[in-house]
Amino acid sequence: MSRIAIDMDEVLADTQAKQLAWLNQQFDLQLTPKKVEGHLLWEALSDEAAKALDNEMRQPDFFADLAVMPHAKSIMEILYQEHEIFIATAAMEYPTSFTAKFDWLAMHFPYIHPSRIVFCGDKSIIHADYLIDDSPRFLSGFKGQGLLYRAPRNVNVTDYPVVENWLDVAKYFSVSLPA
Amino acid sequence: MSRIAIDMDEVLADTQAKQLAWLNQQFDLQLTPKKVEGHLLWEALSDEAAKALDNEMRQPDFFADLAVMPHAKSIMEILYQEHEIFIATAAMEYPTSFTAKFDWLAMHFPYIHPSRIVFCGDKSIIHADYLIDDSPRFLSGFKGQGLLYRAPRNVNVTDYPVVENWLDVAKYFSVSLPA
Repeated sequence: MSRIAIDMDEVLADTQAKQLAWLNQQFDLQLTPKKVEGHLLWEALSDEAAKALDNEMRQPDFFADLAVMPHAKSIMEILYQEHEIFIATAAMEYPTSFTAKFDWLAMHFPYIHPSRIVFCGDKSIIHADYLIDDSPRFLSGFKGQGLLYRAPRNVNVTDYPVVENWLDVAKYFSVSLPA
Repeated sequence: MSRIAIDMDEVLADTQAKQLAWLNQQFDLQLTPKKVEGHLLWEALSDEAAKALDNEMRQPDFFADLAVMPHAKSIMEILYQEHEIFIATAAMEYPTSFTAKFDWLAMHFPYIHPSRIVFCGDKSIIHADYLIDDSPRFLSGFKGQGLLYRAPRNVNVTDYPVVENWLDVAKYFSVSLPA
């Protein structure tokens, strides 16, 4: 049994899908995940759009209705039984998101005990065997084995073992999926 | 430079002072820190009082106006410069406290960067050299050196080096106090 810390945004939750949909609607853009590949979303935006998105993300309910990543629900449920799972999210960047993030986890992953949830801002503070995260910055400070969860922003990053999606996570940790 | 994780309740904030004052007023009691020594506060309470206090602590502003522990302000300010300080609080037990706790830190310790704040529920997840905490339960799971911050509840605990108060913290970490 390993202790595995798992990021929320872009790993459990499809935060970027909501960001792109909001930007496309507000600014009449045609952004797609493909179009923002290779860099942070912010770098693809005008100052005006970046500021507006940042403000929108500070609304208490922005993180409340994010879609769950494909296969995350079924695979997490097994992974949680087979390993010691912690959720580690950089919530301190958006302090107004605390309640929405906590409630989102309770809604979609109700078996995750609150004591397994960590709101932090720097993942070097996490003591675990593995960290699954889409952010190279967070993986670089982590003391255990980092696994890069593939996301548009990190398509060019080659410094860590990659999990392309939740099916890949299942494979990495030899999770036996129901037939 | 060491990485030092510091608990909030009973270490930075005098949570129990507010708990006792509230209980004494609501239930016409004469509780003092001395009277609740040697066990958890909850164990000294009737079921009714325990339930009422738990409910009161779930009000969003319960943690908003706690007193700062004596000397914590002046000593933290120096400690923060000389070491890598993280605040690690078991906020997940009271999810309604997130905002009040974050705001309390910003008000009394404005120089603490949000990335140095961790809301967790199990301090074995904390990767640091030291953890200053009043809870033996949290210290027992911590992988670094635990320091027991003296509180009424832990007067009989002898398993860890003890810091009696913030002046003792300063001494332990050789903080040079202004004359």
